[in-house]
Amino acid sequence: MQRIEEANQQAIERMVTGDPVLVDVIPAAEAISELKERMILHAGPPVEWDRMCGPMRGAVMGIAVFEGWADDLADAESKAAAGEFDFHPNHHFDAVGPMTGMTTVSQPLMVVENKTFGNRAYCAINEGLGKVMRFGGNDGEVLERLGWLRDDFGPALGRALRHVNGVPLKSLVARGLTMGDEMHQRNVACSGLTLRALSPPFVATSDDNEALAKALAFLGGNDQFFLNIAMAMGKSIMDPVRDIEGASVVTAMCRNGTDFGIRVSGTGDTWFTAPVEMPEGLYFPGFTERDANPDMGDSTIVETIGLGGFAMGAAPAVAGFVGAGAASEAGNYTRTMSEITLAENPEWTIPSMDYLGVPTGIDIRLVVETGLAPTINTGIAHREPGVGQVGAGVVRAPMACFEQALLAFADRMGVS
Amino acid sequence: MQRIEEANQQAIERMVTGDPVLVDVIPAAEAISELKERMILHAGPPVEWDRMCGPMRGAVMGIAVFEGWADDLADAESKAAAGEFDFHPNHHFDAVGPMTGMTTVSQPLMVVENKTFGNRAYCAINEGLGKVMRFGGNDGEVLERLGWLRDDFGPALGRALRHVNGVPLKSLVARGLTMGDEMHQRNVACSGLTLRALSPPFVATSDDNEALAKALAFLGGNDQFFLNIAMAMGKSIMDPVRDIEGASVVTAMCRNGTDFGIRVSGTGDTWFTAPVEMPEGLYFPGFTERDANPDMGDSTIVETIGLGGFAMGAAPAVAGFVGAGAASEAGNYTRTMSEITLAENPEWTIPSMDYLGVPTGIDIRLVVETGLAPTINTGIAHREPGVGQVGAGVVRAPMACFEQALLAFADRMGVS
Repeated sequence: MQRIEEANQQAIERMVTGDPVLVDVIPAAEAISELKERMILHAGPPVEWDRMCGPMRGAVMGIAVFEGWADDLADAESKAAAGEFDFHPNHHFDAVGPMTGMTTVSQPLMVVENKTFGNRAYCAINEGLGKVMRFGGNDGEVLERLGWLRDDFGPALGRALRHVNGVPLKSLVARGLTMGDEMHQRNVACSGLTLRALSPPFVATSDDNEALAKALAFLGGNDQFFLNIAMAMGKSIMDPVRDIEGASVVTAMCRNGTDFGIRVSGTGDTWFTAPVEMPEGLYFPGFTERDANPDMGDSTIVETIGLGGFAMGAAPAVAGFVGAGAASEAGNYTRTMSEITLAENPEWTIPSMDYLGVPTGIDIRLVVETGLAPTINTGIAHREPGVGQVGAGVVRAPMACFEQALLAFADRMGVS
Repeated sequence: MQRIEEANQQAIERMVTGDPVLVDVIPAAEAISELKERMILHAGPPVEWDRMCGPMRGAVMGIAVFEGWADDLADAESKAAAGEFDFHPNHHFDAVGPMTGMTTVSQPLMVVENKTFGNRAYCAINEGLGKVMRFGGNDGEVLERLGWLRDDFGPALGRALRHVNGVPLKSLVARGLTMGDEMHQRNVACSGLTLRALSPPFVATSDDNEALAKALAFLGGNDQFFLNIAMAMGKSIMDPVRDIEGASVVTAMCRNGTDFGIRVSGTGDTWFTAPVEMPEGLYFPGFTERDANPDMGDSTIVETIGLGGFAMGAAPAVAGFVGAGAASEAGNYTRTMSEITLAENPEWTIPSMDYLGVPTGIDIRLVVETGLAPTINTGIAHREPGVGQVGAGVVRAPMACFEQALLAFADRMGVS
C-alpha cells in the first residue's frame, strides 16, 4: 500500500538522519523529572514484582538498599512484595537500561541528544563485567561500585563531556564497525575510541590525579563500557520514529526477563508482548544452561537500529563468544536480517562485506511473511538473584510479538 | 634437505616464542653507544648521499639542522654533499626507522625488549600524519614537533612505560588483529589499545596537567602511532633469528628509497639488494603517481614477521586505503603469502579467516620457486625533499633480491 510505503520511507529517513551526541552525565532525578523516591524503572515492557524473574528481583532488592529505601536485602524483598515500590519501564521515561536495567533517582545517567530532532535519551553507566547489578548482583561490592559511579566517576565523565561539547556518536560507531564491534556483545573498539576522545578533557577538568588515573583505568579496562552509550544512542534515534501513522517499522524491542515486548511506529506506544526465549550460547566455566535466566534487558534497542546481531558480519570475533558458529560465516546473520529490514544504513557499513550498510528498519510485515525473527546478541544472567553473568549467546525475538503487532497494525489501517 | 628443514624449524621457533615488550623511551645516544655527533642512521640497506632519493635527502637536511650540525637546510645540503655526515643503516645498530628513518643522537627512541632472548630493538616515535620528517618534511613545524617529542612527549612516555614495567606487545597485537589492524597501514586499534594501557600511568607520573592533556591528545589523535612500536617489535623478534646456519628464512626486508635490501638467516648479515619498485596505490587529493617516490623505509620488518600486507585478511578496511581491490577479497593477499611462508603464527590469528594464523617465516626458496614476491602495504612519499606523504599503496619486494640471496645461500650450503 502506497501510504505504508510512504510512512516507512519517513521512518527510515528519520532513522538515518538522526545525529546522536553523547553530551552529559546528570543525576536521574534531574534527567527524568517524574522520577520520585521509591520509584524503580526496569528493563523491558511493564512487569510487577510477582512476575519478575530472579535476577531482576535481585537487582530491585539491591537498588532499594542502595537508595536507602530498605535496611538490607531481606527488608527490600519484603517491601517489594508489599507493594512499596512503584515499577515502570525505562522506555516510558526516555530511558533504557541493560539486563535488569535499574534506574532510580540518585543514579548518574548518560545523556545522548539527537541533534536532528532535539530529543534526549538516558542510560546508566556500564558497571564493568562480573558481579554487577545489571546481571542481578546486589552485594556490598556491587553497591560500593554504584556509589563510586554516582559520586566520582559519573560527575567526572559529565565534566569531560561538557568540556568538549559532547562526543558525536554516528561517526564513532561507523569507525567501530570497521574495527570488529557490533556494539552489543562486542564494544572493545568503540570503548577505546571513547577513551581516546575523552582522556584529554578528563585531564583538563580534573585536579585530583589519583581519581583521574582510577577513572581512566576503569574506562580503559571495561570492554563493554560503550554498550550503555550505544543503548542511549539507539533510544535517541528511535524515539523520533514513534507514532508515524501507517509505518510498520519496529521502534523498540526489549525484555524484562519474563516478557519480550515490541513497539511499532504505526501503533503508537502499545506493547506487543510474548514470553521471552532462552538464549543459545556459551557459558562461563562452572555454569550451564540450567543456571541461565531467559532473555532480558533493553539492550535490544541496539538491534532495533541495525547493530548487535544485525551487524554480526562486522564482528567475526563475536561469533565465537556468543556461540554463533564459524567466524567466517558471521556475515550470514547480517544477510538474513537484511530480509526483514527496509534499508541499508548508508553511513554504518561493514568493510568485509564490501561496505554493505547495516540492515535498518525492521518491518513487522517482513518478519511475519518470512518467518525470520530478529537475531539478538545477548549476555546471559544467572536465574537466581545476586549471582551475575554466566554466559553470552544468541536469541530470537518471539514471533508472537510480531504477529500480534501485525494484527493490530492491520486493524488500525482498516485492512483486517 | 634435512639440515635446512631443521634450521628453518629453529628459525620459526625463535620467531613464535619471541616475547616483545615495549619497556622504555631513552635518548638515541644512550640506546646506541656507537652513535656519535654527525652520524645519521637511515632506513634500508647502505646508501650514500649521492644515491639518496629526494625525501631522504630532505630528511637528512632537516635532521642536521635539528641536531645543530648545520645553520639551515642549504648549509646542511652542502655539508652532506661534502661528506661531513656519516651514514649507516638503522639495521646495523639494532634499530629501525619508518620511511626515511632518520636516527640521530638526541632523538628519543622507544625500546622493545624481547624477553625470551634478552635483546633490545629501537625505533623513533611516530610523528603523526601530514608533513613529517619520515616522509621527507624538514621545515620549522617539523623540527619543532621533533623538539617536543625529544623534550616533552618522549620522556613522559618513558616514565609511563617504566611505571607499569612495560606493555607486552604479543597479546596487544593479537587483539589488534581482531580489530581490523594489519599494523602497517592500519594501526588505529593498536594505537587505541596502547593509549588504554598507558593513560593511567601517564596520569600517575605527571604533575603538569596541561602537558598531560597534550600528550594524551597526541597519542589519541594519531592512528599510526603504533606503527613505530610494531617496527621495533619486529626488529626485536627477528634479530634472534639471524645467523642460523642453514636457515633460508628472511630476517629483514627494508628499503632506502633507492634500493630494496633483504637479509637471510643462513647468510648472516649480507644485504641482497635490487632497485626499489614503485608502489601501486591511491593518492591524496592534488597528487598523482608522478609525484611519488619509490618504495622506502624499514617498516617492511612488519611484513617480515607476518603482519602488514601478509595480514591483509585481518584488515578489510585497509584494502580500500591502499588500493588493494575489494575489501571482501583482502584475505586473498594473506592466502597468497601463505604460499611463501613456512608456518602460521599460533597466537596472531585472523577471526574472519576462521582464526588462520598470519603467514610466518618467509622462505627465499619458496619465493623464488613460486615467483610470488612478498606483498607490502606502504605509505608513499613525495619524490621532492620537504613535501611529505602523498598517498598509500601496495608494492612487491623485488624478486632479484631473493634470487641473489638463494644463489648465495646455495653456495654456502655447498649445493651450487
